[in-house]
Amino acid sequence: MADIKFEGWLGHNPESANGKMEWGSFEPKKWTEDDIDIEISHCGICGSDIHVLRSGWFPTNYPCCVGHEIVGKAVRVGSNVKHVKIGDRVGVGAQARTCQQPDCPECSSGYPTYCARLMVNTYDCQFPNNEGKSYGGYANYNRTNQQFVVQIPEGLSSADAAPMLCGGVTVYSPLRRNGCGPGKTVGIVGVGGLGHFGVMFAKAMGADKVVGISRKNAKRDDVLKLGADEYIATDEDKDWEKTHKRSLDLIISTISSANMPLTKYLTLLKRGGEFVQVGAADGGAFPDVNIFTLLTSGAKISGSSTGAPWEIKEMLQLAADKKIKTWVEERPLKEANQAIIDMEEGKARYRYVLVNENFGKHDAATKL
Amino acid sequence: MADIKFEGWLGHNPESANGKMEWGSFEPKKWTEDDIDIEISHCGICGSDIHVLRSGWFPTNYPCCVGHEIVGKAVRVGSNVKHVKIGDRVGVGAQARTCQQPDCPECSSGYPTYCARLMVNTYDCQFPNNEGKSYGGYANYNRTNQQFVVQIPEGLSSADAAPMLCGGVTVYSPLRRNGCGPGKTVGIVGVGGLGHFGVMFAKAMGADKVVGISRKNAKRDDVLKLGADEYIATDEDKDWEKTHKRSLDLIISTISSANMPLTKYLTLLKRGGEFVQVGAADGGAFPDVNIFTLLTSGAKISGSSTGAPWEIKEMLQLAADKKIKTWVEERPLKEANQAIIDMEEGKARYRYVLVNENFGKHDAATKL
Repeated sequence: MADIKFEGWLGHNPESANGKMEWGSFEPKKWTEDDIDIEISHCGICGSDIHVLRSGWFPTNYPCCVGHEIVGKAVRVGSNVKHVKIGDRVGVGAQARTCQQPDCPECSSGYPTYCARLMVNTYDCQFPNNEGKSYGGYANYNRTNQQFVVQIPEGLSSADAAPMLCGGVTVYSPLRRNGCGPGKTVGIVGVGGLGHFGVMFAKAMGADKVVGISRKNAKRDDVLKLGADEYIATDEDKDWEKTHKRSLDLIISTISSANMPLTKYLTLLKRGGEFVQVGAADGGAFPDVNIFTLLTSGAKISGSSTGAPWEIKEMLQLAADKKIKTWVEERPLKEANQAIIDMEEGKARYRYVLVNENFGKHDAATKL
Repeated sequence: MADIKFEGWLGHNPESANGKMEWGSFEPKKWTEDDIDIEISHCGICGSDIHVLRSGWFPTNYPCCVGHEIVGKAVRVGSNVKHVKIGDRVGVGAQARTCQQPDCPECSSGYPTYCARLMVNTYDCQFPNNEGKSYGGYANYNRTNQQFVVQIPEGLSSADAAPMLCGGVTVYSPLRRNGCGPGKTVGIVGVGGLGHFGVMFAKAMGADKVVGISRKNAKRDDVLKLGADEYIATDEDKDWEKTHKRSLDLIISTISSANMPLTKYLTLLKRGGEFVQVGAADGGAFPDVNIFTLLTSGAKISGSSTGAPWEIKEMLQLAADKKIKTWVEERPLKEANQAIIDMEEGKARYRYVLVNENFGKHDAATKL
């Protein structure tokens, strides 16, 4: 396997977010017997990629190769790995490793996503033990710890699966943990890469009512086609916060702008209902909270961060079983710069997936 | 009963909050057979009283008689009232009436406090059906609808009971609804009228650990005496947000200033833990929320508003059974103006109760 050369689209500075990534080689993390090398066939484009390229959340440690919705073929598998063998079609989402200690309250209870001891993201992080830096999936290969590597089930295409690995599970996890299913009414704020999954998953999970919520009526038809029972255009519908008052058990907010009518959203919740924010604006900004809204409604505001491997597996199986199709547009990996520009301009309907045109052509892969 | 003359301390403008209330007569709500007239013996002073006197939350409809921690004797009881008879020692908290309709999701499920159809507070509100205005307990008599009138159990003094009717139940309700008891660790932010109840109730409910949280070490001894297991002085202890990180299931925040280290408080919560705000600053202001704090911890922010009659009764019985003593200082009703000045200056340790020096001397009462 010595002939694998890791190459990908590298951001060298915040300008890279404006379609200025450069193709180049990088040194993956140091190999250990807990690692897997994946020849990448597909990688979804997630809003996080662009936030990180421009150092929007925290200062980025350039050079950085983004992309954390990776699907491909396992081409090298460490001897400690039991759940993946060479040739398997596998995926990696936004996280790559946590502490995994038996005394960690989060890792030991199925919530590694919230591990407070160690959090290695799939890109722009450092693996422990001086194993080196994490690089993402706008690349030909990915090397990562086995912890967050999952099998892609049969019946789900790689292009459909890739965007679920971050975009999908980020909404699936709070839906599941908040009991989305029969008897529940659910609102999905924002209809994009995350939100369109929210509508489809909430329906597939059996929610009584799913309400798509966006600013304009332009997306109404799409949202109803995705399976929503109702649609609210907050900029255009009149008195929507009154007509839909106290009608929802749960709202998942997928928008990453802090410019949202939070107080009105909260009035849509039933007493004790929960507003779960899953998007993050640059700097972590969030709208002002007027405490009276919470005092008089008993509503809750919370956040949720991507999902654990078991949630990813469960979601992928649900998608395979219910034949959920991502609304995806394939873009050649070589056009990644244009694709992130288009993504940032909101042109995706609703997710772009980079397709590696050289997948399967590399010596290492063809040797399999 | 025609000789009852309703008199009390009236605020005529925002200046009244600065000890400028004036004693005078007022016209109580129109009598109905669902009403109870209470000769007031005790009324606690709640921070809300001062907020409302100065129009701090919403424009107040002057003249206003505040006070919603009322204990006294039922001296007139409407014919529709079954649970109170003349001569009973009864209490009224912050709310006086809700819709009580069988199809109201809140009223029909034990949560009238969150009724979205009708909310009549004990003062500065209008009863429905043109029954008139609600006046509070800085007065000789109170007339109110039976819905929120509760019996005061034996074994609990009126001075101890009065501050529990708002201050007490405002912390009891979120403690109970969030499962405070064995296995739970609870933080109480702010050690005043509400917070000191929070510490005592959380211990009485069997929480594994109760942590008092205030700015200065000056209150440490008091808080430990109240039963807390630990104390954090946020202005003076070093790195408290690190040493206590992810240690609490539940935090009840009783402070009404928006000037609080919210992000640090949130780091004290375990994954999925809840920060419940029960105090409200003027205007409903609340600190900025950095969404990353919620995304990475899975913590929730919520609000809670006073408590239902069944919760008030349950709390009073708990207090009687466990011999919980309010830290209360009695003040003569005639000195109400000075008492609210002292209250606003933070001198109460930890609750003032106005005592009506004329209780029992009135013809109507002595006729009982």
